Amino acid sequence: MNLRRRGVACMVALACLFAADTFAADGAVKKPPTMADVIKASRPSDWHALDPANTLYLDLGSGRVVIELAPAFAPNHVANIKALVKEGYFDGLAILRVQDNYVVQWGDPYADARSGEANQPRPIKTARRTLKAEFSVSLSDKLPFVRLPDADGWAAQTGFSGDFPSARDPKLGQAWLAHCYGTVGVGRDLDADSGGGTELYAVIGPARWLERNITAVGRVVQGMELLASLPRGGANMGFYDKPEQRVKIERVRLAADMPAAERTNLEIMRTDTPAFAALVESRRNRIDEFYKVPLGHVDVCSVPLPVREEKK
Amino acid sequence: MNLRRRGVACMVALACLFAADTFAADGAVKKPPTMADVIKASRPSDWHALDPANTLYLDLGSGRVVIELAPAFAPNHVANIKALVKEGYFDGLAILRVQDNYVVQWGDPYADARSGEANQPRPIKTARRTLKAEFSVSLSDKLPFVRLPDADGWAAQTGFSGDFPSARDPKLGQAWLAHCYGTVGVGRDLDADSGGGTELYAVIGPARWLERNITAVGRVVQGMELLASLPRGGANMGFYDKPEQRVKIERVRLAADMPAAERTNLEIMRTDTPAFAALVESRRNRIDEFYKVPLGHVDVCSVPLPVREEKK
Repeated sequence: MNLRRRGVACMVALACLFAADTFAADGAVKKPPTMADVIKASRPSDWHALDPANTLYLDLGSGRVVIELAPAFAPNHVANIKALVKEGYFDGLAILRVQDNYVVQWGDPYADARSGEANQPRPIKTARRTLKAEFSVSLSDKLPFVRLPDADGWAAQTGFSGDFPSARDPKLGQAWLAHCYGTVGVGRDLDADSGGGTELYAVIGPARWLERNITAVGRVVQGMELLASLPRGGANMGFYDKPEQRVKIERVRLAADMPAAERTNLEIMRTDTPAFAALVESRRNRIDEFYKVPLGHVDVCSVPLPVREEKK
Repeated sequence: MNLRRRGVACMVALACLFAADTFAADGAVKKPPTMADVIKASRPSDWHALDPANTLYLDLGSGRVVIELAPAFAPNHVANIKALVKEGYFDGLAILRVQDNYVVQWGDPYADARSGEANQPRPIKTARRTLKAEFSVSLSDKLPFVRLPDADGWAAQTGFSGDFPSARDPKLGQAWLAHCYGTVGVGRDLDADSGGGTELYAVIGPARWLERNITAVGRVVQGMELLASLPRGGANMGFYDKPEQRVKIERVRLAADMPAAERTNLEIMRTDTPAFAALVESRRNRIDEFYKVPLGHVDVCSVPLPVREEKK
């Protein structure tokens, strides 16, 4: 069984570097590395610090949600969200909607207020309210892609583009962010071009069916539990029934605009490293004291992307 | 586009009954039915009431979690859980562990107490503490199976066995419950046969990799949001750090043992009906005012299993 597994590991070329370690000096079969083993054995070069220019802090009373933006997948929306953040657009707004096993959504509770009503929509200075949809981008050699060999029903190909689970279809000539747990997207109305970033959501249940139908702009790299554990809303689509149920957003800031002392300095494991390939394999074929039967499969949303405090 | 979709719909034979409705009397293309349309058009015979003999009520201070047991997939564990419930084993015990994007687990906080410690394990009268694992069952014609034609990486075949998302592998000659959101399983230690039902969990994130490695006994049909919105535990594997963080279980009862006035009478849409086939198709190819691009795929964990109050 262990030998068969080694064969599977080596189908992912980079993983062989780690898989070689499966065998002791005398040729005896050793236990394959677990995810914890892989992280422990990783080198500093297997990690990189989050780019402060593409990192958002969504600060709630309960703590900080750290979001990594993906400008390669939605350049105009990411730029617009940064402009909104710069204006302080989100400060004092709220989480409006928590739909179980689906999404947590935040924005302006009075975005749809009519003139004359007591509460008016939050004004916007330089950013835009709506933009042309960026549901996918053209396939390009510039876009990194560490492909998973595993079958996926939702897309022709899945894998990792930098720090992001992503998918692509060579026939369509398109690539997009996968809608996994933690993916951050742009709320919109029925019209494809009706979003712009004033209302954002994070995925708290699998939602691959949203792909190519909505603009995704990044993912939560730390603090998902602060969103996923919020009370579900009782109204249609999980909107909170009463204003007092809404969860206030203290502020949203770009990490680059925060003083060093107020930053959350995180490192993410690079997905284009032998360490990450070994981690993927450790999830594809779990065999340890607990797991008895290796399944020989992993899906793009089931691979954890390790995050840790930056080592200075 | 609409015509092509009709072709896809008709690949699932039963769905054609509903798909025929895509065309108006004059031959003009009508909108394909959405899930809401399908539910609205369903007949009483498309639904069945939950069997009180296989329905558990997990009553928390926040409300009731309704669990449907699956004796066809884990006969010994289901019988043992019913025996534990009959004894009142779970009454006053607690939710011990909430690991983000993974599981909520409940049982006896003092299950591992040593003799002489102040808090001792809850005694068991007639039920058993451990049983031989029931990770899968032998394939049998008696086991209903409405197969999904859609690709799945985790198992050779997926579909629905009665009210349960399930998977099977003809080569292995095995069938098992799919580990989707809401699946209820049996906590165990490292040994395969170390569980018995005294500690149970509900899946709050996708966990297909647990399949064939753990005993699944049913699924939550109502009240998942009460579990999924609980605060995450701060200790290793999401266990609560402090006793006061634990969420008390008021009681667990079999519906059949409850007076009629205290039952939660629910109906579930039958999965072997044209209505359900149409519902699956409405998720496989979503086209409505919001969705722009049909993906032509659905996975076994992304199909909602409609539940409603029983109509008397």
